[in-house]
Amino acid sequence: MRAEIVSIGTEITSGQSLDTNSRWLSQELAALGVTTAFHTTISDDLADHVLAIRAATDRASLVITSGGLGPTQDDLVREALALVADVPLEEDAESLAAIIALFARRSRPMPERNRTQALLPRGAGALANRVGTAPGVWMRIGQSTLAALPGVPSEMKVMFHEQVVPRLREAGFVKGATAFQKINLFGKGESDIEALALDLTARGRDPEVGITASEATISFRIAATRATEAEAKAAILPTAELIRERFGELILGDGDVDVAQALVTALDRASATIATAESCTGGLISAMLTAIPGVSRFFLGGVTSYSNEAKSSLLGVPRDLIEAHGAVSPEVAAAMAVGARDRFDADLAISSTGVAGPGGGSPQKPVGLVYLGLATRAGLVETRKLELGPEQPRDVIQKRGAKHALNWARLALATT
Amino acid sequence: MRAEIVSIGTEITSGQSLDTNSRWLSQELAALGVTTAFHTTISDDLADHVLAIRAATDRASLVITSGGLGPTQDDLVREALALVADVPLEEDAESLAAIIALFARRSRPMPERNRTQALLPRGAGALANRVGTAPGVWMRIGQSTLAALPGVPSEMKVMFHEQVVPRLREAGFVKGATAFQKINLFGKGESDIEALALDLTARGRDPEVGITASEATISFRIAATRATEAEAKAAILPTAELIRERFGELILGDGDVDVAQALVTALDRASATIATAESCTGGLISAMLTAIPGVSRFFLGGVTSYSNEAKSSLLGVPRDLIEAHGAVSPEVAAAMAVGARDRFDADLAISSTGVAGPGGGSPQKPVGLVYLGLATRAGLVETRKLELGPEQPRDVIQKRGAKHALNWARLALATT
Repeated sequence: MRAEIVSIGTEITSGQSLDTNSRWLSQELAALGVTTAFHTTISDDLADHVLAIRAATDRASLVITSGGLGPTQDDLVREALALVADVPLEEDAESLAAIIALFARRSRPMPERNRTQALLPRGAGALANRVGTAPGVWMRIGQSTLAALPGVPSEMKVMFHEQVVPRLREAGFVKGATAFQKINLFGKGESDIEALALDLTARGRDPEVGITASEATISFRIAATRATEAEAKAAILPTAELIRERFGELILGDGDVDVAQALVTALDRASATIATAESCTGGLISAMLTAIPGVSRFFLGGVTSYSNEAKSSLLGVPRDLIEAHGAVSPEVAAAMAVGARDRFDADLAISSTGVAGPGGGSPQKPVGLVYLGLATRAGLVETRKLELGPEQPRDVIQKRGAKHALNWARLALATT
Repeated sequence: MRAEIVSIGTEITSGQSLDTNSRWLSQELAALGVTTAFHTTISDDLADHVLAIRAATDRASLVITSGGLGPTQDDLVREALALVADVPLEEDAESLAAIIALFARRSRPMPERNRTQALLPRGAGALANRVGTAPGVWMRIGQSTLAALPGVPSEMKVMFHEQVVPRLREAGFVKGATAFQKINLFGKGESDIEALALDLTARGRDPEVGITASEATISFRIAATRATEAEAKAAILPTAELIRERFGELILGDGDVDVAQALVTALDRASATIATAESCTGGLISAMLTAIPGVSRFFLGGVTSYSNEAKSSLLGVPRDLIEAHGAVSPEVAAAMAVGARDRFDADLAISSTGVAGPGGGSPQKPVGLVYLGLATRAGLVETRKLELGPEQPRDVIQKRGAKHALNWARLALATT
């Protein structure tokens, strides 16, 4: 059972997003075991409606449209459906009565143009709209079943749950249930991790495993479809266990856990406090940590020492150390971490100093060169060198540098 | 000239969005006078790739795909293009050399898998990738011209501007010109600003004016299409001037200027330095400032004082002040700003203390209550109260609080 979602609206080039409806629908369908193979967005042109609906009903057995059912001239779905099915539009008495009743409840007369919302292609059924004026449409086109839903999210969601899902069950489209699990990793590139997971991501494997990357965080997504939700969830477990065994400390956690959350979990387990000293990441390590609710139990604070003066006065980095090695050096990274640890009296401190670019690079210290420092209460002081450039933009270098620092602190807590 | 954008990835049902790339591309195309009539999203199934690319090349004269050019088994665009065009895949020597060179620059051997990224359908041209491994593809399929771009936004954008746009011009696709100007505002809500701009945003007005909001920054977008770029740009000027006159100091600047950039411009004009002291914004003010290249000339540094102890030891906030008024108070906000100004020896310092939530709120100090502080070298010390909750999530409260602080500093520099 493969579905296509068609989003209809004028927003395609305006910078607004129709994506939210589509995502919601595809997730609801996935939970019913229906895969969304295509998602198409079109603007308010009748010929494009016809092309898109024809293509969708040709290639998917279930088509769901959202939008285009309003009373205005821009609302063309009813007309397009009639054209694709080659049938006339006819007024549905029950739908018209429902629209008139809705306006009566709101103590307003029905504007004449809302009458068009009661039109249905001949042979189609109306999907009642409990929360708005536009009824939906339920019909067969060729080998495909089509549901046309309103674009207003609140109306669409109620109509999907109350009108579409029961019809899908009745028609035998919905069998079983699909369960998902996401496992996030950090510390290796996507192709390196993919190379270690070829058996898992192979086509046709059950459970299915997908792999995606976002800002250097890699995600495995396990999916299994079974007769019941409990069976689907159980089917996922051995694959999740296999991934955990194989990727060990690269794993940040189950679900959509990123490095900052994983570090906070590690701090909680170790009952440890942390502080930061940042130069090239400019406060981003601190900001990523404080995005996590409840972090104040573990995070004492941080210093962004953007000037050499601040490195000395606020973190106690010796001036001659900066002069001897330069601000971007392992020596200064180490002294910054020690300074933050001592000033905040923290169990652990992490630091960054580097060249975020786009200017300021040199052959010896190119854009993307970042030194991280780590200092623990037990007296461990270490540094690490990252080469994140030189072709990456400033924000990518800053984000990756910050994520590497957070991840290093997580690993340090796990091993000490 | 009508275009179709095809977004490729496994994320269609996972809740992640491929929409950002598509929106960016459709806006760039609009600026070239090309209308995006369709946008299709597909998952990583080869047969679906073929169906979607075939449908797109049947109905649009320009097709741009993003994603699916990586080195993994899920990356199927090259294969799909060869199938649709009915030609074999062949290794492109120049692309292979570029990929090997990129890995060499990163001091890593090229994994064997990445070799597949140098494959091209026979007759197609490679689009050089200056910032990543995957070259793009430029080819004709039937009556349509197709450009296949990587899904990584930074790679896609560079490739579009440097490789695709010149080819579109050369092929004569781009005729006439549309000029755009964005004017960003901060400090009032979208509906308030919209109510003051009904004459500007009226349908059918030329130049056209759109209004959008993103994280409390409001953007006007003026668009005019004329025979030449110079004429289009000239047509925009009177509308831009009208907006500048009407909205005065709310205006952050022309183009996609956000509050941090506007503050840096103001710092530059005033030759002033700045420092920060953050509690509830957790380093975000500092991170937003340091996202701007060249900010080191003005930004001396900041302290994230997440614990009361840090507020005293690093910023010199008196302990009895915190005890008397609580950490979330105008008194502490003021003392934090004074502390940052003095410790960093800055011309100006801004501070934040508040309840970011979701926990920690009380009837007296609810989630979303934020006090900002501002202190200048001339001795001005002020505070401001924001009520950003209680229904907003933590990240929105933190971002809005940080943006209000940056904006306040901008206005303070303009008036002193």
